[in-house]
Parts: sequence; structure tokens; C-alpha cells
Amino acid sequence: MRIAELSRRAEVPVPTVKFYLREGLLPEGVRTSATQAQYADEHVARLRLIRALIGPGGLSLAAVRQVVAAIEQPPATTHDLLGAALAAVTTTEPVADHQRVHELLRAWGWPPGPGHCSRHEDLAAALAALDDAGFELPEEVLAAHVEHATAIARAEVDAIPTDSATAAVRYVVLGTVLLEPVLLALRRVAHQELSARRPGQGGP
Amino acid sequence: MRIAELSRRAEVPVPTVKFYLREGLLPEGVRTSATQAQYADEHVARLRLIRALIGPGGLSLAAVRQVVAAIEQPPATTHDLLGAALAAVTTTEPVADHQRVHELLRAWGWPPGPGHCSRHEDLAAALAALDDAGFELPEEVLAAHVEHATAIARAEVDAIPTDSATAAVRYVVLGTVLLEPVLLALRRVAHQELSARRPGQGGP
Repeated sequence: MRIAELSRRAEVPVPTVKFYLREGLLPEGVRTSATQAQYADEHVARLRLIRALIGPGGLSLAAVRQVVAAIEQPPATTHDLLGAALAAVTTTEPVADHQRVHELLRAWGWPPGPGHCSRHEDLAAALAALDDAGFELPEEVLAAHVEHATAIARAEVDAIPTDSATAAVRYVVLGTVLLEPVLLALRRVAHQELSARRPGQGGP
Repeated sequence: MRIAELSRRAEVPVPTVKFYLREGLLPEGVRTSATQAQYADEHVARLRLIRALIGPGGLSLAAVRQVVAAIEQPPATTHDLLGAALAAVTTTEPVADHQRVHELLRAWGWPPGPGHCSRHEDLAAALAALDDAGFELPEEVLAAHVEHATAIARAEVDAIPTDSATAAVRYVVLGTVLLEPVLLALRRVAHQELSARRPGQGGP
């Protein structure tokens, strides 16, 4: 198909398609003349992926580039895959205090080893923000987050496809990014439903 | 204290403090002359809260204004509180298809009533993004998200303070916003730890 049909099928304006081509997010089509090229179904799929990552996924162009690269060039192991996915979506600046995170990890049964601190930046920053805001997190609430985040991650890791490396990368990278808004939206719907059913919700 | 000390104690530059004053996010101090005012500890706390909401919380100034308003003027019920918190942090544009969300809610045991659709926008958008990206979500993974998001929300709603409306608002609004990065970071740490321990992680 030509670029006009690609644009129509992917629901992305032609100038935007050209921008993604220039940025290397979308592979070149097969040139048929100096000004024309032919595109395939994989280009439609890639455009939909880019739009989902930028829109609901909330990724920057640079992060989309990393995700696309991870999908095209699968690293060797599941663990490396997750590392690539995390690197693509982690933007937190280093913070000073990992003490609290390390205590939490020990209590969680995952004592921190040497050289693993980069993975804990987001968690350290998120916990520090609670303190900065003067928010006192009840212990049982943190414990519920730890327990159930682990259960969710276990279901996700167990479902990593084993039939091909490409399918595994695709699942891990997209699942890491695109299931975050799903999880947060489910939690908020549950808040609404549970608080509507809470005894005494008629008012304090 | 004067504005210079307020700035120092809250670790926010004086021009930024003045900006928040002009924007109405920070209450005025007590005027002591045409050009000077005195500030109290509550101003330090408010500044830390604003910084946490804008930084790790990822809120816009408009959303911070809504959160601050919700904290200052508590609505009547727990359910209203959650509504105010959600309104402050929900930015999704309406999407057409709520069919899938309503099916999910029915399976979840929470059949959608009339007029409740605005709460489902985020979830509908998040699920639509999976389809747009061509991501096939395994059923057991969605089931795990639903089950454990509910368990987390239950622990959070159960821990809403009952001693004062102000404490309840503060907990609900800040907890809704500031625990999101905590939950996502915990999930990612769990991914890393679980995949490192996965049988056969030496490579596909």
C-alpha cells in the first residue's frame, strides 16, 4: 500500500507517519520511485503500537525508540528482556536514600545484592514522595501493596510466552508499559465500588 | 518566619514560592508591612505537599489546585471524597466503547449502573490501548490484575481514618495519587526478582 492508505488504515496523519519514518521509529517502505514507497501490514501494526505507547502508555519518543529497539533485537534472557523494558520506561533521577527500600526488600524476602540499586530508584523516589508530602502510610496498606504487586507480577512472569524470543520480548515490553494504566484504573474503579459499599459512607 | 526562611526550610526557591502564592496554591502569609509577610509551619507542609504532587505524583498545576481544594473543603462522604480525588487525577478523554468494561465489571461482581460511566473512562482507554498495540492479554493475567487491584483497594479503603473528615480527605486524596508510583515500582521490582529466579531464565 502507499503512504496515504497506510495513514488511513492506521488512523495516523500522513505528516505524522513521515515524522516517525524520519525518526526511525517506523521502518522504511520498499521504494518504488524517488518519491514513492510501498508499505505492508507490519507498518500498520507498528504505527498502532507507537500510538499506544505514546498515548495511554505515556512514553516519550526516546522511550518508544528503546521499546521498538528491544522488540527488534531481542536480548538473550527473560531477565535481560525485563531489564530492557524497565530501562525504556525508567526516567527517575537518582535519589540519595535507598536505606528504606533495602529494609523493605529484606522484609519482602529479597535482600538487595551489590550493583542492583538502579532498579530501586523508582521505588525509593515513590516512598520519599510520601514523606515529602507528609503522608503517613499505614503499615497494613504498604503490606497489601507488596503482597498483591508480587502476585500480579508472578501471574505476568508465568504467562511470558516460551514459543519464541520475539513473542516473549513483545509480551514483556508491551505488558510492562501498557498494563500499568490498566492496573491503576482497576484500583480506582475498585475504590469507587468499595467506598460506595462501605458501612457508614453516609458521612463522618 | 519570612519568605526566605520558608524557602530554605521547604527547599523551594523564593521565586517558585511567590509563583505558588500568586496561583493560590499556597495560602497568603500574615502581612507585617507592604512588602513583607510572616509564614507558619503549615506553609512549609503545604509547599512539600505541592512539590510531591507535581514531582513524583506527576500532577498538573490545575490538578494540584483541585487536590488542595479537596483537602481544604472536605466533601460530605467517603464516597464523595474518592470522587473528588479521582476527578483531580483523571484526565482521560471520553472514548466510545465501554462495552468491554461493562462486561468486565459484571464478571467482577459490580454490574454498572446508570450514570456511572465517567468512572470507567480510564479503564476503557487502558484496555483499548492494549488492542491498538496488538497486545493479546492472557485471561489469567487480567484476572490477577482484577483480583489483586481489588485486594489493594480494600486495604486502602479499610484504612481511611475515621477520626476527622480532614484526616480522611487528606488520606484519600494523597493516597490515591501518591501510592500509584509506589504500586508500579513494587510491581517492577517484583518482575525483576521473579524473572531472575525463573526456571530457564538462562535463555530461550
